[in-house]
Amino acid sequence: MKLIIKNIWIVVLLVVLGACSKQSDNTHYPKVILTGEAVKAIKAVKDHLPLLKHSIESLEKKVELDMLNGINVPVPVDPAGGYTHNRHKQNYITMYGAGVLWQVTGKANYANYVRDMLLEYATLYPTLGEHPVKASYALGRLFWQQLNEAVWLVYVSQAYDCIAGILTTEQQELIEKNLLLPYADFLSVENPKVFNRVHNHGVWAASAVGMTGFALDNEELVKRAFSGVETGPKPEVGSGFLVQLEQLFSPDGYYTEGPYYQRYAMLPYLLFAQAIDNNRPEMKIFEYRDGVLKKAAITTLQLTNTNGQFFPINDALKSMSYMSTSLIHAVDFVYGLDESQKELLSIAQEQGEVIICQAGLKVARAIANGETKPFKWESKEFRDGPNGEQGAFGVLRSNTGKESQTVTMKYASQGMGHGHFDRLTISLYDRDEEILQDYGAARYVNVEYKHGGRYLPENKTWACQTIAHNTLVVDKDSQSEGNVKIASKHHSDPWVFDATATDIQVMSAKENKAYEGVRMHRTIAMINLPEVAKESIILDLYRVVSDKAHKYQLPYYYMGQMMDTNVDYQPETTMLKAMGTNDGYQHLWQTGEGKMAAGTNRFVWLKGDNFYTLSTQAENNDKMVMARIGAGDPEFSLRNEPMVMLQRENSTNTLFASTIEVHGVKHPVTELVEGLKGVVKEINTLRNDDEYTVVKIVFTNDSHLVFAMCNNKNDASLSHSIKVDAKDYNWTGVYQLFK
Amino acid sequence: MKLIIKNIWIVVLLVVLGACSKQSDNTHYPKVILTGEAVKAIKAVKDHLPLLKHSIESLEKKVELDMLNGINVPVPVDPAGGYTHNRHKQNYITMYGAGVLWQVTGKANYANYVRDMLLEYATLYPTLGEHPVKASYALGRLFWQQLNEAVWLVYVSQAYDCIAGILTTEQQELIEKNLLLPYADFLSVENPKVFNRVHNHGVWAASAVGMTGFALDNEELVKRAFSGVETGPKPEVGSGFLVQLEQLFSPDGYYTEGPYYQRYAMLPYLLFAQAIDNNRPEMKIFEYRDGVLKKAAITTLQLTNTNGQFFPINDALKSMSYMSTSLIHAVDFVYGLDESQKELLSIAQEQGEVIICQAGLKVARAIANGETKPFKWESKEFRDGPNGEQGAFGVLRSNTGKESQTVTMKYASQGMGHGHFDRLTISLYDRDEEILQDYGAARYVNVEYKHGGRYLPENKTWACQTIAHNTLVVDKDSQSEGNVKIASKHHSDPWVFDATATDIQVMSAKENKAYEGVRMHRTIAMINLPEVAKESIILDLYRVVSDKAHKYQLPYYYMGQMMDTNVDYQPETTMLKAMGTNDGYQHLWQTGEGKMAAGTNRFVWLKGDNFYTLSTQAENNDKMVMARIGAGDPEFSLRNEPMVMLQRENSTNTLFASTIEVHGVKHPVTELVEGLKGVVKEINTLRNDDEYTVVKIVFTNDSHLVFAMCNNKNDASLSHSIKVDAKDYNWTGVYQLFK
Repeated sequence: MKLIIKNIWIVVLLVVLGACSKQSDNTHYPKVILTGEAVKAIKAVKDHLPLLKHSIESLEKKVELDMLNGINVPVPVDPAGGYTHNRHKQNYITMYGAGVLWQVTGKANYANYVRDMLLEYATLYPTLGEHPVKASYALGRLFWQQLNEAVWLVYVSQAYDCIAGILTTEQQELIEKNLLLPYADFLSVENPKVFNRVHNHGVWAASAVGMTGFALDNEELVKRAFSGVETGPKPEVGSGFLVQLEQLFSPDGYYTEGPYYQRYAMLPYLLFAQAIDNNRPEMKIFEYRDGVLKKAAITTLQLTNTNGQFFPINDALKSMSYMSTSLIHAVDFVYGLDESQKELLSIAQEQGEVIICQAGLKVARAIANGETKPFKWESKEFRDGPNGEQGAFGVLRSNTGKESQTVTMKYASQGMGHGHFDRLTISLYDRDEEILQDYGAARYVNVEYKHGGRYLPENKTWACQTIAHNTLVVDKDSQSEGNVKIASKHHSDPWVFDATATDIQVMSAKENKAYEGVRMHRTIAMINLPEVAKESIILDLYRVVSDKAHKYQLPYYYMGQMMDTNVDYQPETTMLKAMGTNDGYQHLWQTGEGKMAAGTNRFVWLKGDNFYTLSTQAENNDKMVMARIGAGDPEFSLRNEPMVMLQRENSTNTLFASTIEVHGVKHPVTELVEGLKGVVKEINTLRNDDEYTVVKIVFTNDSHLVFAMCNNKNDASLSHSIKVDAKDYNWTGVYQLFK
Repeated sequence: MKLIIKNIWIVVLLVVLGACSKQSDNTHYPKVILTGEAVKAIKAVKDHLPLLKHSIESLEKKVELDMLNGINVPVPVDPAGGYTHNRHKQNYITMYGAGVLWQVTGKANYANYVRDMLLEYATLYPTLGEHPVKASYALGRLFWQQLNEAVWLVYVSQAYDCIAGILTTEQQELIEKNLLLPYADFLSVENPKVFNRVHNHGVWAASAVGMTGFALDNEELVKRAFSGVETGPKPEVGSGFLVQLEQLFSPDGYYTEGPYYQRYAMLPYLLFAQAIDNNRPEMKIFEYRDGVLKKAAITTLQLTNTNGQFFPINDALKSMSYMSTSLIHAVDFVYGLDESQKELLSIAQEQGEVIICQAGLKVARAIANGETKPFKWESKEFRDGPNGEQGAFGVLRSNTGKESQTVTMKYASQGMGHGHFDRLTISLYDRDEEILQDYGAARYVNVEYKHGGRYLPENKTWACQTIAHNTLVVDKDSQSEGNVKIASKHHSDPWVFDATATDIQVMSAKENKAYEGVRMHRTIAMINLPEVAKESIILDLYRVVSDKAHKYQLPYYYMGQMMDTNVDYQPETTMLKAMGTNDGYQHLWQTGEGKMAAGTNRFVWLKGDNFYTLSTQAENNDKMVMARIGAGDPEFSLRNEPMVMLQRENSTNTLFASTIEVHGVKHPVTELVEGLKGVVKEINTLRNDDEYTVVKIVFTNDSHLVFAMCNNKNDASLSHSIKVDAKDYNWTGVYQLFK
């Protein structure tokens, strides 16, 4: 209480002093992200560009709403989700907004607000030690972890840049010496290991320090950001922003932790790159590594379902989408660099706002001019690893619009600590609906009730485990012993990716290290045959090779309600038991089990208003197992969603050959049902060995197709000629569809 | 096969004969629903009224798509959902559309299509006996039940009315004598019990026969529709459409089976009434019974959540909404009668189409003129029973717009065979999201996989039972022994309904017959105090009075994920057991249980991006039980949704005093969390006896309020004066809020 009263007096004193000693300089222009040139242009046209006008007005609304709370700079106490955490987070957001608004509206109360709050921080900051919540490997001061600490400075350096002109010399010195410089030192020289880390935490720190360097004309800070800091007597080689840029994105602009983290990691990259482009244009930072930053931005947009939500592989929260601030920056900055990318404008329209800067102005102007083109989602393989040689993430789409079906397959590297043990897992979307889901992370971000908003214990025991995914589990164990270090040593191997034809698109990959002595090879084909079926038919071939006999289990986390199966199963109606005690099985209730008949077995479900059918070729003694997530969950944190699993025991070399059909609709209002049944009548394996896999699908209209894949050579120029069932099959390329 | 070939020849022959014997009369105008006057007006303005133009064009698209299939009039074989069922259903829809289109576009192919199909039906119909699927109390011929049979004629009588002008005398005779007249006889004189039944099946039959009467200028058919038919030697008194109108809607326009069936029952009422108004304007049918049909139409619209979906009490499917054809008719016809109801236009805009008739024309014109006003959802009590004296259905809303909270309470009569044993059950909506759900029906309409699309066995064993609802269960038995006959003998009693104040709205009702010797009295207050909480606080007071000790269980079917509770509970983590063997308990898995501490206990959940908190005052030894739907469900037909239940054993007279708060938001993209915690700190019962219930709520800001209710007198003019806890409370009226 005393401290606050004292602070208020200091502020009053300084304001009075400020008012006496120096006139506010409202011709000072910022330079970090927003620039003088942009400010002049925005002021001139803002009333004529609806999206820009709306963006400024909505920023004003948000900033003014928070300004009503007055200046609150509390002593840090709480973990993520708690009051002081949220308050410091809101403070940087509001300061940034107020700084920008001062520039484009000229209303002095915005600038004064930022000044007064910075002065409060300049008083508080020198009094702070380590954050009292000791839950991070890198403790912050205002926040429980240095990551948040860096984010604060990324925003505040911009806020300061915008309002510096109104400060008296004394105020400027106070804020720089008591706050910004020691803050930047804390993030860099005082915590060199975090700062130099090739990891999104390192990127945020480097960007924060570098942007502060530009804002303060402090060459030393900029240098640290570019090249890292010394960690000890021996200078570390290869750290800082340029190395980050080299290491973290693949040549396809794929970020190894996956899209949810890519979205987060993009922002400091983009902001600092934009700041570099504004202040060191000669570096041509956006052209660096064949334009990797632009590629990364576009890749992030592509790694979404047609609702704009990121594919939730690894520790991802499913609601996160390209509506996030980070992607608004990405869309605007990339369009700012390359105004030919009119497809970005449709995303900007969906986002409904632009960043108040030169790039945002360009976007708003182009939209007002009616230059928008629809965004095109592509079938594409996104290579992982700095050189693109550590596997990949594959995406097949039935078309480029919002009404497409999408299948993804993960055959990348581990993705560091946030990676799951789920090599060769797939997901299926029908339009923006999840049909075969990836569970994502077990976490309620920032919800204090749930372990302070951090990752839940069930994230490790359930969400990371192999059985939680749509991929093969061998002997009820997770891949790579569920050990990140082991898993990080290797990656899956792309076999073939080809999305050039209209009737069939194929992605195929191998994983030989996840289970010792077991080689796995999964092929996903998206077949579009309008003469047979209205929507896509997904062919799923999961080949396993092993010298020893194993228990193989292949789960499908279907979303929705089971409608039908031709398997004679025994449901559990009075008692449920957990399916195991470890490797994630402790989180599954078994709800039913049935022996499949040799031949084609079907499982039909309804999601929303549409039907889906899994048809699979069973061997004698194969089982179909039904289960539901939710066992071993004492705090009721897991989503109780269903699963159906194919199970083959005592098997060595084998093939799980299945199709997944998207078909039919149940009209919610007319109650009419169309296309209730799929068109796949039979699926038969004609051949499966080290050389070839050949599968035949027979349709209900008695037409059929044959799909052939070469398993030991993936040179697309090679020709193949085989005889199966007294029939000759000749083709060139890794695979072929015979109709 | 032979039959079809023969039919084709007959058709060819007739077409040739027709072409020779009589010129098509395209100046013939219809009169049943569409009229000559309307046809002329529509033709004149259709290109200038966007909604009308769109409605015609989309009807053309649908009709032409189906016409591509040719004329298919199959011999009836299948149950609901099967091919022949769907085909005959689609046939009447397409014939109706083609008939109307012939009138408003003048394209002869539409009229020819209807003619050719009617001739096919005229050939098939005389050959048909009872439908082969024997699953209804009233078998049809084309369909498995007479209900569908009647619906067919409601549409086809309009189609015939539209195209009659093009027929030769021979064709006309063939269609009337071989099809329409015997069809109408089948529905009326041949099945008098169904026809005379005061039930939606009877309404459909009467309307079908009456509309056919108008189309054919057949006075006898019209008379049957108005007055019913003789069932035996003694003429039955009180049947036919006019009695239906008397019996089935309450004076508030509430239909006793509930909104889902009201929506369905509305259509024949409205259509036949419109036909009567066009052909017997002197009857002033829409003014009948104080304009009950208009009231019923408006009531149906009011009985929706803000997504337009009907409150799913009784055997309701949740996806059904005011987008249904029936409500498009309702909106158009009512606006056609009363053009001052501009609020209906916003619903018509959402519906995106109008009926092609005089009323639809008026709607389209008004919308084009910009006369639309937003629809206002109201807090209202809808009385049940022909005289409004059989209980009611109460709806409280925090405001009239789409951003409101809504609580419903059912204290009506049983609602006939589709009624559930759920007196005093409540539901809560936050905007268009279900927060405390009514399960609705256990049925997948028209999905052949699921018992042919009929009600599932679980509808009776689960969905109808008391434990499946948000109301009190006594001694684990369903109300009225789960017996419709017993339950139909009595109804609940409204106690007070008052939605006049802005800070508190109250609905309260008693149910004394559901359990022998147990009197129940539930009061729901929706409290809106902006100074305390942003959103509504729902006060839920469930009073029970009994001489004998009972086990009381009060379940809440919350939607979403549990976030927190201050109850020390034991979760089931390795094994789940069904909670019973009968009365619906066999369908619940118990997932946890905890003894509540005397005082205020909390249960917090997250639905979508919002938080909700149930706070309840527990007595010593009260328990909180957690459960999930899904036991005893061998075909996996039930939705596995959660429940939390308050349990008080060995209790006679008692009060369950709880609040339910709507609070907080978790932003999906910024991941910021606001308003994580509710504001109710304590809820304390100050007094609860036969005279008064007085409850105090203390908020986290230490302000409080007291709610007092008189339990034995509900005269609003009476004054009350009581002393509780040494404090005087004086008020006039049944209840009072003291702030």
